[in-house]
Amino acid sequence: MDAIEVIRAKRDRGGLTTAQIDWVIDAYTRGDVADEQMSALAMAILLNGMDRREIADWTQAMIRSGERMDWSVLDRPTADKHSTGGVGDKITLPLAPLVAACGAYVPQLSGRGLGHTGGTLDKLESIPGWRASLSNDEMLDVLRTAGAVVCAAGSGLAPADKKLYALRDVTGTVESIPLIASSIMSKKIAEGTGSLVLDVKVGSGAFMKTTSTARELAETMVALGTDAGVRTVALLTAMDRPLGRAVGNALEVEESVEVLAGGGPSDVVELTVRLAQEMLEAAGVSADPAKALRDGSAMDAWRRMITAQGGDPDALLPRAAESLTVEVPSSGVLTRLDAYAVGLAAWRLGAGRARKEDPVSFGAGVTLHAKPGDLVRAGQPLMTLHTDETSRFDRALEALEDGYAVGEASEDHLPLIIDRVTAE
Amino acid sequence: MDAIEVIRAKRDRGGLTTAQIDWVIDAYTRGDVADEQMSALAMAILLNGMDRREIADWTQAMIRSGERMDWSVLDRPTADKHSTGGVGDKITLPLAPLVAACGAYVPQLSGRGLGHTGGTLDKLESIPGWRASLSNDEMLDVLRTAGAVVCAAGSGLAPADKKLYALRDVTGTVESIPLIASSIMSKKIAEGTGSLVLDVKVGSGAFMKTTSTARELAETMVALGTDAGVRTVALLTAMDRPLGRAVGNALEVEESVEVLAGGGPSDVVELTVRLAQEMLEAAGVSADPAKALRDGSAMDAWRRMITAQGGDPDALLPRAAESLTVEVPSSGVLTRLDAYAVGLAAWRLGAGRARKEDPVSFGAGVTLHAKPGDLVRAGQPLMTLHTDETSRFDRALEALEDGYAVGEASEDHLPLIIDRVTAE
Repeated sequence: MDAIEVIRAKRDRGGLTTAQIDWVIDAYTRGDVADEQMSALAMAILLNGMDRREIADWTQAMIRSGERMDWSVLDRPTADKHSTGGVGDKITLPLAPLVAACGAYVPQLSGRGLGHTGGTLDKLESIPGWRASLSNDEMLDVLRTAGAVVCAAGSGLAPADKKLYALRDVTGTVESIPLIASSIMSKKIAEGTGSLVLDVKVGSGAFMKTTSTARELAETMVALGTDAGVRTVALLTAMDRPLGRAVGNALEVEESVEVLAGGGPSDVVELTVRLAQEMLEAAGVSADPAKALRDGSAMDAWRRMITAQGGDPDALLPRAAESLTVEVPSSGVLTRLDAYAVGLAAWRLGAGRARKEDPVSFGAGVTLHAKPGDLVRAGQPLMTLHTDETSRFDRALEALEDGYAVGEASEDHLPLIIDRVTAE
Repeated sequence: MDAIEVIRAKRDRGGLTTAQIDWVIDAYTRGDVADEQMSALAMAILLNGMDRREIADWTQAMIRSGERMDWSVLDRPTADKHSTGGVGDKITLPLAPLVAACGAYVPQLSGRGLGHTGGTLDKLESIPGWRASLSNDEMLDVLRTAGAVVCAAGSGLAPADKKLYALRDVTGTVESIPLIASSIMSKKIAEGTGSLVLDVKVGSGAFMKTTSTARELAETMVALGTDAGVRTVALLTAMDRPLGRAVGNALEVEESVEVLAGGGPSDVVELTVRLAQEMLEAAGVSADPAKALRDGSAMDAWRRMITAQGGDPDALLPRAAESLTVEVPSSGVLTRLDAYAVGLAAWRLGAGRARKEDPVSFGAGVTLHAKPGDLVRAGQPLMTLHTDETSRFDRALEALEDGYAVGEASEDHLPLIIDRVTAE
């Protein structure tokens, strides 16, 4: 078999055989298929597609390129959640300890932010002392101690995906549902979770801008998980406006702690509880997550989890040195507060990174004082921008220019939870 | 501007702007656009196409990546021919001196063979002493001495095309008419010829298997040449069977010398004379090439050309050590003698190379004793295989297995000259 033969097969709209997929992923991981060959293949896949069997084969081949974790030594079921990423999406932070408090183990491998969406690891790293890198044994220890662990994926997990993802990032081949679905699911299946809830975001601040493409991605991923023996369900949720009122690393940790303390913005609470219910149901655990928020057991699990990974749950979080308030321009109803605009502003304020080797500013970001649908008065604070360098305000304000609008009456926006996708 | 933006534009079926094309070709030549980015772009171009303006811009950008030769110091017009390659296509060898004998200069930069089609330089190198590599000054000297020069393109000519061609070769992105046309025409326009005749081959032994794809390629190239100020015309010619009776390096030189001596197979003579007429007409020179073959002036130009490049026109040519005759299986009419099968057999006998660094065997190849349409009797010789290593016969015979057929009556095959394509 050779790379050109495989590329040509997909280029000429043929399906790839299982043997071709196994060979090309393995040879690419070993370096026998060159980057320039894999990128040509990725472009052919992006333009000509893959069917369900090909996507499943592609995912399995990526899983086989590395180790597959195994939590069968644990005495309770495992459950995980994956979000396709959004602005202000800190849900993992309250959710993982909440589900742990309800009786399932949550072994979550997470990522860093790139572009306008934040990364869970960046957020947690704003907690002094907290470590993202754990060995498999350390993961098991944290799971046993706290019931939940959120850490960076080691290099042994789906190395083919790591290599391919970096390649797609620089070759204009990211936006392919088969490649996105297999990338996400290869890591989640290799992670060894018994059940998985996918939070597929829809809207300007999400990767998928429309409900129909989000549904296609969700269905593809649910099928992949199910075929691989993982109980998988997906929710399509709104990302036309930011989630909650805090966007930025430490700012989102603070908001998460509010939720764990029984408070916090209603949309964050609602989505956290709903995702917890889905995870527990998929894991076969009967418990009431709303109660675990109220009675403090979720907060206890959070403190154990942070402590077990070296963090101090009582430490003061980093704050940005400078702030600037954006005022409401006229009185009425806030009709629009665009997720992408706010995410881009937070990114430009220093909360995100342009290249993966860049550092992030833990204190930078945006605090929202109103959400779409709220009645607002001219001159009241709409949002506060936080940064370490005042020179960043101008570009952030530019990003926000068309990002909000005040009108006379509330306009329709996406329901927080748009739909639920399960295996057929 | 960045590579991902350009790749996305073509991926999403947009046209590339002139500025985008200029930038990406220049940045690729400099190494600022990586191979894996260019191969993704090449695949997007292959699948989504380019329009006439984009192809012209792409070609001009490749020309500008290097030097453009200039023959304006010469006192007569220049004319060149390019063939898209076929089996037994030695036409350049008699044609270049023939056109020179008729009063136009022929400055031809040529290539080596790869795969089942032979390369003009490999054929000429079977002449003891002959040198393919010349400086620009040496080219001018040979042109002034002999009227024609056939040599290797220096590294200064369209370096972007050289780099891109090598990349396309390993990434399954060769078969794109816009990329093929711009590759050929960037070199031919940079070569500085005033007029150009394209011989676009059609059939099993050619790159273009059908008349319609060959016509599309011909029209694209004629438009490119015309837009660049080169008087350009194309012929579509048959490559369902080999051209002439000799396939292989030294074997084809011998056949070419027969043509220059006034003999040779009728198809080679007809195509040589027709292409010479086209070249002379495009160059604005009035002369009779058939007469120049008869009166020996074309042979004189050949001898001057070979001598001026260090070759000995009287030297004995290399011969293969071993030969094997394939007999006609049954009496009747030879209905089929497939160009690809014969080309593949010659290649396996050692006439061609699998990788560009491989040497070729000068003596290896196939001699044909009958052509399609000929009456043949069972047991008479159909072809003779020549090689330096008897171990090569088996694989060559395998290539020929379904390559010929004897029937009861002559069957239709492509006319030698199928059509003529000129600028609109």
